[in-house]
Amino acid sequence: MSKPLHSSVKPSLIVRSLQPENQETPIQFINGDTIDPNLFYRRNHFSYPLLTSSNYWLPINGSVEIPRLFSMQEILNIPSKMIKLVLECSGDKRGLFEPKVFGEQWQKGAISQGYWKGVPLRALLELTGIKKGAKEVVVEGFDYGKRTDSDQVYSFSRSLPLDKALHPDTIIAYEYNNQPIPLKHGFPLRLIVPQWYAMASVKWIKQIRVIESEFQGPFQVIDYVYYPNRENNIDTLPVTTINVNSTIQKPLDREVLTTGFHFINGIAWTGNGVIIKVEVSTDGGKSWSDAKITNQKKGNYEWISWTFEWPALEKGEYTIMTKATDSFNRTQPASPFWNRKGYGYNSVDKIKIKIE
Amino acid sequence: MSKPLHSSVKPSLIVRSLQPENQETPIQFINGDTIDPNLFYRRNHFSYPLLTSSNYWLPINGSVEIPRLFSMQEILNIPSKMIKLVLECSGDKRGLFEPKVFGEQWQKGAISQGYWKGVPLRALLELTGIKKGAKEVVVEGFDYGKRTDSDQVYSFSRSLPLDKALHPDTIIAYEYNNQPIPLKHGFPLRLIVPQWYAMASVKWIKQIRVIESEFQGPFQVIDYVYYPNRENNIDTLPVTTINVNSTIQKPLDREVLTTGFHFINGIAWTGNGVIIKVEVSTDGGKSWSDAKITNQKKGNYEWISWTFEWPALEKGEYTIMTKATDSFNRTQPASPFWNRKGYGYNSVDKIKIKIE
Repeated sequence: MSKPLHSSVKPSLIVRSLQPENQETPIQFINGDTIDPNLFYRRNHFSYPLLTSSNYWLPINGSVEIPRLFSMQEILNIPSKMIKLVLECSGDKRGLFEPKVFGEQWQKGAISQGYWKGVPLRALLELTGIKKGAKEVVVEGFDYGKRTDSDQVYSFSRSLPLDKALHPDTIIAYEYNNQPIPLKHGFPLRLIVPQWYAMASVKWIKQIRVIESEFQGPFQVIDYVYYPNRENNIDTLPVTTINVNSTIQKPLDREVLTTGFHFINGIAWTGNGVIIKVEVSTDGGKSWSDAKITNQKKGNYEWISWTFEWPALEKGEYTIMTKATDSFNRTQPASPFWNRKGYGYNSVDKIKIKIE
Repeated sequence: MSKPLHSSVKPSLIVRSLQPENQETPIQFINGDTIDPNLFYRRNHFSYPLLTSSNYWLPINGSVEIPRLFSMQEILNIPSKMIKLVLECSGDKRGLFEPKVFGEQWQKGAISQGYWKGVPLRALLELTGIKKGAKEVVVEGFDYGKRTDSDQVYSFSRSLPLDKALHPDTIIAYEYNNQPIPLKHGFPLRLIVPQWYAMASVKWIKQIRVIESEFQGPFQVIDYVYYPNRENNIDTLPVTTINVNSTIQKPLDREVLTTGFHFINGIAWTGNGVIIKVEVSTDGGKSWSDAKITNQKKGNYEWISWTFEWPALEKGEYTIMTKATDSFNRTQPASPFWNRKGYGYNSVDKIKIKIE
């Protein structure tokens, strides 16, 4: 008469806000090699623009030799490349800062991974040519609206310095995981900037402009800037490269477990180089052991998965911590680099569990 | 070419764990009079039992004059009543306790409201009769499994003292919002106990037993007990009546708003009597003003909605707090009653926002 009900339990995103839509992935479901579109975190500043590809043209203008309008067909005719990479919101883990900061209170799930296919931005810029005084490439999205700090309407626009724009792996993508890019993730074209936090990977590209100055848009010079001081704007730094980081996916924080052997699992990633070591502590940081890295990365921009078998033989409360180190010897700090807008949190990951 | 994309943004539950399934409602979507089954929080100790009503019988036995097996048809033939009530998990808001406690880290969304229709438990017990020495009524659910603290298998069972079991509004429900009870919320029969935290409202009823002693099941004497001390089991109290409480639904914690008039909205509820007052502070508790109660409750077991229009004319950071008071003059405390398993959190609700 009674049997377990299987398979009807489906994971879904965790809502942070609906207008604009901001939702994150429950970390226990980041277990695959790539994230399905339905579990891909969503981070927006404005309403979704609704675009069709039938009449889509990509303009490239500004400080170029020949301004051009590229049709989708022209773009599809250029040799493509596929890149597997981590996209992490620079506000990922913002909710963990102490003292707390304002803005979306992301926990640990504003991160994703998948295959993006498209053409190098460099290939398009070779077709337009770049003038001598060129300094930055501004990519504008179709999403726009009012910010809380101004009455003006802005589109979401970001610039890249020329060397990053011309990097062969900086692509104008048209497919995600072998499908057209989902509407909520940038259809029909999205800039993909490996190694940088995901604000750089502008969605729904409207136009690309080469400029001879430093771009001053609010998403460049107000947001996505590290402000180390609460009360002033001294010593600021732009948010760019992803910090070395790790997340414990299992067990969950504050979980109660039985005595016995448990697997502690998670992921680790970095914006520069590759992860070479993940250490785990089950005694609150007094001692550390190496976790086993269970997948060897094929590309340079992927997260690694790690696991650690823990003999939890004594009842009690345990603080479990993880610390990743990358090939540039960068490692996760014991306490986060606090900044007023809450970007780039990468302190040692920490959960507390109870064995009973 | 670009227009806003509407209607594709749907709220969903926030996953706390999947096996067993524990999910809560994002508080910003608790805006209706009743909660749809797809947004109704889910709290389970074990796997879902899968029941059909075709061969369902409800046994009532133990210290009764005539043990009986009731068919669904017999139950449906008894005069029914419909009750609109709040069901709140006693662990609602557990994640807010400081120092933190173990268990599911519920935020503010383990609460629901709707119409339950069924027959008074009292009507069934009048048909079986109750023996003189009877003390409690034990209701057992079809869900069962192992606990972390024992190797034995237990079903989820809870007892009610005789007076609560015989209260005319304590019902054996077969409908939720005019539909058969959803599979995940107790189909085909669920005990509904108004005014008590929802652990008392046993789902998937397997049998009802009248006993002459105090029930000693683990969900009665280990869980759902207030343990005021971290290190010992002194001064414990059973978890029963819902505490007076309120939740701010809008704005969200750590939201950034523009200067101007804003509505602060939320709900308030209590297990005993009715809410007579909700106060709001926008200066961290220094001064308080009455919020406007926007719906008059028709029943005794419902939450009320409240709103407060706030002229936020100066930029800065604000701590917004709410405090509900009920007709027994119970009010929300300034700091929560800490207890080791984290039940009954009802401290003044508090969020922090920024006006810029």
